[in-house]
Amino acid sequence: MYQIGLIRVLTTDDQTLLQSHGRMLMEYFPAFSIESRCILDQSEGIHDDETMALARPKILALAEEYRQKDAIIVSCAGDPAVEELKKVMPIPVIGAGTAVSLLASGMGDRVGVLGITGEPPKPYLEKLGDRILDLGVPEGVGSTLDLMTEAGQRACIRKGQELKAAGAELIALACTGFSTVGFAKVLERELQIPVLDPVVCEGVIAYFELLRR
Amino acid sequence: MYQIGLIRVLTTDDQTLLQSHGRMLMEYFPAFSIESRCILDQSEGIHDDETMALARPKILALAEEYRQKDAIIVSCAGDPAVEELKKVMPIPVIGAGTAVSLLASGMGDRVGVLGITGEPPKPYLEKLGDRILDLGVPEGVGSTLDLMTEAGQRACIRKGQELKAAGAELIALACTGFSTVGFAKVLERELQIPVLDPVVCEGVIAYFELLRR
Repeated sequence: MYQIGLIRVLTTDDQTLLQSHGRMLMEYFPAFSIESRCILDQSEGIHDDETMALARPKILALAEEYRQKDAIIVSCAGDPAVEELKKVMPIPVIGAGTAVSLLASGMGDRVGVLGITGEPPKPYLEKLGDRILDLGVPEGVGSTLDLMTEAGQRACIRKGQELKAAGAELIALACTGFSTVGFAKVLERELQIPVLDPVVCEGVIAYFELLRR
Repeated sequence: MYQIGLIRVLTTDDQTLLQSHGRMLMEYFPAFSIESRCILDQSEGIHDDETMALARPKILALAEEYRQKDAIIVSCAGDPAVEELKKVMPIPVIGAGTAVSLLASGMGDRVGVLGITGEPPKPYLEKLGDRILDLGVPEGVGSTLDLMTEAGQRACIRKGQELKAAGAELIALACTGFSTVGFAKVLERELQIPVLDPVVCEGVIAYFELLRR
């Protein structure tokens, strides 16, 4: 069994919500034993530069508590603090953003990025570059909380349809809040093109990093 | 359980050798049930354009027998016939070459490619481009069979040392014959930089493709 520390960037004391990514990963990867914790005082998660900057030191501090684990997953598409952590941690540190971008880069030349931020998160920009198709945020969606509402999900489906119409061969979801609500399968059924779920992707890359040790 | 058809491009009637990649994958991915078959009349596998061209129609024919499976893995770093198969098969088709290159691209900017062919296999060239560091084939190594000899493995370790000295941050092995003999762990211990095993990589990408359906 691999002991994994998972960091949620959405503050919550709802145990079902807190454990949702970890539970998904343990179902997909039976060799994972996952402990989930969230940062404090970010009830809307990370959705812009300011909330990203606020979260960074909290993630670094939380990661210290996971130093004895086999790996750390930062379950956020912006990979907050991931580069810093990779330098100081003796174990693999996986961010959802890099994981999605890597796997997306093998699946097509036009990658529709669908998220909650004004521009695609940094790891997407860096790894996918000019293969990105970005049409901005879905109407009325400002944070991960909006992905939990019916109106928010309808707006995301419309944005997915626009991305496909504009030539996207696949959709790279750019917020792990989509995973919380199982949105990838919904959107894939609707669009009939591959839709990458950030939590699945972070799990695949984490398993790869652990297997090859 | 996922039913997977695996294609070996080295002709052999030695069952241990034939089953070696499938056995590794079933150990790493307990949800995989793998059937392995090899193409005929290529006792030296694929190691140049001519043996690649010879193998292609044989792989296409063998894949037809796997049409009812959940996925097909072509266990060769050159991805022979993989592009054609992706077009005609209703199931995921995974080549080791694309899998290694994708995963390598997330791990560093200077990727040492170590294989048995005069220049890196096509998927490596396409996905890694100018991040590739290539110093040619190890001395005396002409086909996958040479990776099974002590002299061949010594030559590969020397080439790995040269690649690291030239600035490689990781090594992407470019022949699945390295997996057969467990060479990635040997070389990684020697060089102290990550060494990607092609069979591990094809398994990770296959699991990803199956999970997300």
